[in-house]
Amino acid sequence: MSQFIVIEGLEGAGKSTVQRHVVAWLEARGLPVVMTREPGGTPLAEKMRSLVKEVHEEPLTMEAELLLMYAARVQLVRNRIEPALAAGTWVVGDRHDWSSQAYQGGGRGIDTALITQIKQAVLGDFKPDLILYLDIDPAQGLDRARARGELDRIELEQLGFFERTRARYLELARQDAHCELIEAGRSEAEVKAAVLSCLERRLCIPG
Amino acid sequence: MSQFIVIEGLEGAGKSTVQRHVVAWLEARGLPVVMTREPGGTPLAEKMRSLVKEVHEEPLTMEAELLLMYAARVQLVRNRIEPALAAGTWVVGDRHDWSSQAYQGGGRGIDTALITQIKQAVLGDFKPDLILYLDIDPAQGLDRARARGELDRIELEQLGFFERTRARYLELARQDAHCELIEAGRSEAEVKAAVLSCLERRLCIPG
Repeated sequence: MSQFIVIEGLEGAGKSTVQRHVVAWLEARGLPVVMTREPGGTPLAEKMRSLVKEVHEEPLTMEAELLLMYAARVQLVRNRIEPALAAGTWVVGDRHDWSSQAYQGGGRGIDTALITQIKQAVLGDFKPDLILYLDIDPAQGLDRARARGELDRIELEQLGFFERTRARYLELARQDAHCELIEAGRSEAEVKAAVLSCLERRLCIPG
Repeated sequence: MSQFIVIEGLEGAGKSTVQRHVVAWLEARGLPVVMTREPGGTPLAEKMRSLVKEVHEEPLTMEAELLLMYAARVQLVRNRIEPALAAGTWVVGDRHDWSSQAYQGGGRGIDTALITQIKQAVLGDFKPDLILYLDIDPAQGLDRARARGELDRIELEQLGFFERTRARYLELARQDAHCELIEAGRSEAEVKAAVLSCLERRLCIPG
């Protein structure tokens, strides 16, 4: 049965690289795979992504930011992820629900219960089968992200914001048996080896 | 003290005409007034409005529609309505929170408790001082709207949708002492007279 695998973590943790490793691992086993990213991943959700990511003259309130994230997520789950899973296709996502818990909850300080309420209201019990949380020191992650080029509206936050975001990620990771914590401050080769060994252990699919 | 007055009602009920009458009435009394419309009314909220109103190839889920409505509403309340009221300016709005209760709740059948939860979570107890609900038979309203030109994504719904929307509007109107129900199926002159007499009675501002 196809599964929904999500890569989570701070800026510069290496999510998109790990996403490609996971996809290659699944494809090497003859499995059909699609990749998603959040916010975004459908035409309408990508428009919501621009509203959230771009720097605007008008400040985006943190409540509107949260609602836009969930609006984009509902579009992606209903119109792309669920149909793919129903058709037997694996889905590998760059970010999903934990990003809202970590960034809007931990980083911005929006009440966790409220975020969970919105999540439950619009998505019910839908959740990933496996979450790879790439843990990295925020300063190291931001250095990597900076080296990559321009930063978006959220990436322009202060270090304290990302420290609170990481703390919430760690709380979530410790409480969820569907999560594997990968130490992402290491070299790309070491992170890749950790990811692949985790997939072999978790998914038990012959190569 | 300045107030937030909202005009609510179905397509073709005459909301924008009534909005202009209310603004003219306040201005004739030397009061500063701004007009708003929902969804929209700020640069970011107008972008959210396009997502909700335009017909897209990708279906907009009803949950995403609801979240976008509230994202736009939070932007408008925080960045436009509250600052105006704080500066002593009156605000006359074409639609506000009842539209979500009526269209997404009544029309689409989303659980009322859920809508109220989202509303409370992001806007707390913020509400209009006066709501003029323009009640009209949906068939008559849609005829008027059709005569005006092209219909948007929501206005393309079936008659039953608008009957459920009107039923929810009527429930809300009956329960709220801040609401005046105006029979809007009459001639423009009769509706205008009813609106002005209501303003004189409610607001007690010498002309």
